[in-house]
Amino acid sequence: MALSDLAPADLTAFADAQRAAYAELKAQGLKLDLTRGKPSPEQLDLSEALLTLPTGHVAADGTDVRNYGGLAGLPEMRQIFADLLGIPAANVVAAGSSSLTLMHDTLVQALLYGRPGSVEPWGVEDVVRFLCPTPGYDRHFALADRLGIELVPVPIDADGPDVEVVAELVAGDPTIKGMWLVPTYSNPTGAVCSEEVARALASMPTAAPDFTILWDNAYAVHHLTETEVRTPDIVTLCAEAGNPDRVVVFASTSKITFAGAGVAALAGSEATVAAYLKGLGFYSIGPDKVNQLRHVEFFGDAAGVRAHMAKHRELIAPKFAEVQRVLAERLAEHGIAEWTDPVGGYFVNLDVLDGTARRVVELAKEAGIALTPAGSAFPYGEDPRNRNIRLAPTLPPLAEVTAAMEAVATCVLLAAAEELGG
Amino acid sequence: MALSDLAPADLTAFADAQRAAYAELKAQGLKLDLTRGKPSPEQLDLSEALLTLPTGHVAADGTDVRNYGGLAGLPEMRQIFADLLGIPAANVVAAGSSSLTLMHDTLVQALLYGRPGSVEPWGVEDVVRFLCPTPGYDRHFALADRLGIELVPVPIDADGPDVEVVAELVAGDPTIKGMWLVPTYSNPTGAVCSEEVARALASMPTAAPDFTILWDNAYAVHHLTETEVRTPDIVTLCAEAGNPDRVVVFASTSKITFAGAGVAALAGSEATVAAYLKGLGFYSIGPDKVNQLRHVEFFGDAAGVRAHMAKHRELIAPKFAEVQRVLAERLAEHGIAEWTDPVGGYFVNLDVLDGTARRVVELAKEAGIALTPAGSAFPYGEDPRNRNIRLAPTLPPLAEVTAAMEAVATCVLLAAAEELGG
Repeated sequence: MALSDLAPADLTAFADAQRAAYAELKAQGLKLDLTRGKPSPEQLDLSEALLTLPTGHVAADGTDVRNYGGLAGLPEMRQIFADLLGIPAANVVAAGSSSLTLMHDTLVQALLYGRPGSVEPWGVEDVVRFLCPTPGYDRHFALADRLGIELVPVPIDADGPDVEVVAELVAGDPTIKGMWLVPTYSNPTGAVCSEEVARALASMPTAAPDFTILWDNAYAVHHLTETEVRTPDIVTLCAEAGNPDRVVVFASTSKITFAGAGVAALAGSEATVAAYLKGLGFYSIGPDKVNQLRHVEFFGDAAGVRAHMAKHRELIAPKFAEVQRVLAERLAEHGIAEWTDPVGGYFVNLDVLDGTARRVVELAKEAGIALTPAGSAFPYGEDPRNRNIRLAPTLPPLAEVTAAMEAVATCVLLAAAEELGG
Repeated sequence: MALSDLAPADLTAFADAQRAAYAELKAQGLKLDLTRGKPSPEQLDLSEALLTLPTGHVAADGTDVRNYGGLAGLPEMRQIFADLLGIPAANVVAAGSSSLTLMHDTLVQALLYGRPGSVEPWGVEDVVRFLCPTPGYDRHFALADRLGIELVPVPIDADGPDVEVVAELVAGDPTIKGMWLVPTYSNPTGAVCSEEVARALASMPTAAPDFTILWDNAYAVHHLTETEVRTPDIVTLCAEAGNPDRVVVFASTSKITFAGAGVAALAGSEATVAAYLKGLGFYSIGPDKVNQLRHVEFFGDAAGVRAHMAKHRELIAPKFAEVQRVLAERLAEHGIAEWTDPVGGYFVNLDVLDGTARRVVELAKEAGIALTPAGSAFPYGEDPRNRNIRLAPTLPPLAEVTAAMEAVATCVLLAAAEELGG
């Protein structure tokens, strides 16, 4: 029976039972962590061979990868990203280890110099605003906010951002210069942007001539089932719609090989790539090509990346299944929470009883379970319904995922009972 | 006899001889390159062992270097830079592969948010100007120019920038927000900033409260003789002078291990490091710690770096000696050129007859010898006397250095003879 349907006495009894469970939980002195989307050591072990690569120091075109140069990255590394993203290699740059840094650089360039199609640099505008499909990635929001960009939340559905809302906003407001988007297995909801949504985003009229989608395809190949969804080719869709420079695509091997020592990529139209490289040339003499050759030798090609991702899936799919099992067994019957069952990516999105998310995180913390701060998936950390919690089950061992999720369930139930007056 | 003292007929004969020599040179169809300060393949070979390192993936403090995190870099890597630079490890950040990128990031942060001690972000000022010891590093100048910073040339002597000129400018002009400086074996003159000059720079009154020296110690350990000069500890000098936040120090292993795949460092006061890391935290989840551990294992400690640099010296000192030999034998007697004889770094600064530098580079190019564009060591590429040429002899094999320098000498003599009317 739903918790809200319980008679007062039953609710009180239920609350008391949860308090007892919570006291027991605290007594265990747990120290568990579901905060961040980090790969587990076992996942990192899958790439241990990288540590003794590359076997040589010469790229396919004869480049000595140890020396300066090659601003756009090794051709064979660009080709692997191109094949994975479905974008021609000429439109792909292989860079350093962090795609987040590429996003920062893209925004800084836009603020200082504008983007292809800009009338003037974004930084001279009084107000620059970005649409933020919400819940979304806290680092995206914080990065834009840090750069003085105002954050405008828009809803996200299972097939991507709500294009009706988005289209209406961008059509009428020239201060809306762009939007964030994680098209594949979105952080944190697991949404996958459909071809239809992508086409609408690529073609919708925008008041700002330089409206830019930062298409962070961080989880392009991070499938949790054997069904490998294919992200829409947004670069081609934008070009076909007559808006070739509307999108900048990002990706990386951070959650494919080593989280801190992978290779990141940027892609887009010819003008987007040229503008990026022009700016980059002032502050870089080329990326770490040794690390790129290391990855090229390790993978061979894009098929090698896909085969490698299947090994990741074997390690993490059971953890996601365990999250589903505990949530279903402990919470489903009480009607006080909803959650996603993603088929890829790194997160489960948990919506608890309105008004209780912060309390759940607080209860969990006191019991030794670290959760991402409530509201962090929202612009400025403000969850208007105070209900959203992001769960990241990849890092802990399976047994700890079980223990942590049992603890989370207890906290969710206790907070709900409290909220309902039990 | 000096060329300018020759009788007209003798000058004509001399010019004819040079034209003949130049025609012979062109007929050789050479293809040589003295443009950039790149290490040779033999120098890169010294670090080949890096390709199979690290042997493990755990840092001294237990950190799994493969995963995210550790924004300030591995403690043991910071310690090596600290020992090399004479700066406490707590004041040193170990970063990605490019110090040029760190300089860019530092300037972007200053423009957007100001530096410690700033009243407001540099970017809101109408004019921001930087002093540029000249001749200097073209990439420094281009980077600042790209960011809208005006370049103000100041003279550089053998012991560093002309502090009298610098002190007068900074005392009276609050738009002068900073200066570039390569303190050790300056690019391209080989100047070494003395303790006295460093102390004056650290203590001079400045109209701008946030005046900032970008202290690019790119060649801190790049000695060409057994005398290893010790760069002044500018961080301590600034602190002692009551201007702790005046300097940001940069260094890297780019010309120690692999030019494109080394480790860069940033250092400064506690406030400087804290401000940098605060900004960095918005766009990075930590540097490539695998590459840092790779370097730590390879070097062991700072003494290991110094021992490694002695091997570089063995490879490149003969090339620098050859440059000196050819210049002395071919040019000295004619009184139309001066050049430096550096005891470290990567360059020889050649001043040819006033008004002939561009012609020399043009002649060399037509004969198949690539030289850095004339004037590139000056702000905006403008050498008022059109006499300065930067020579970079590290990359080519010794025999090619000889051939290239013989060719350069011929071009210098021909251009001088032309200029004098021969």
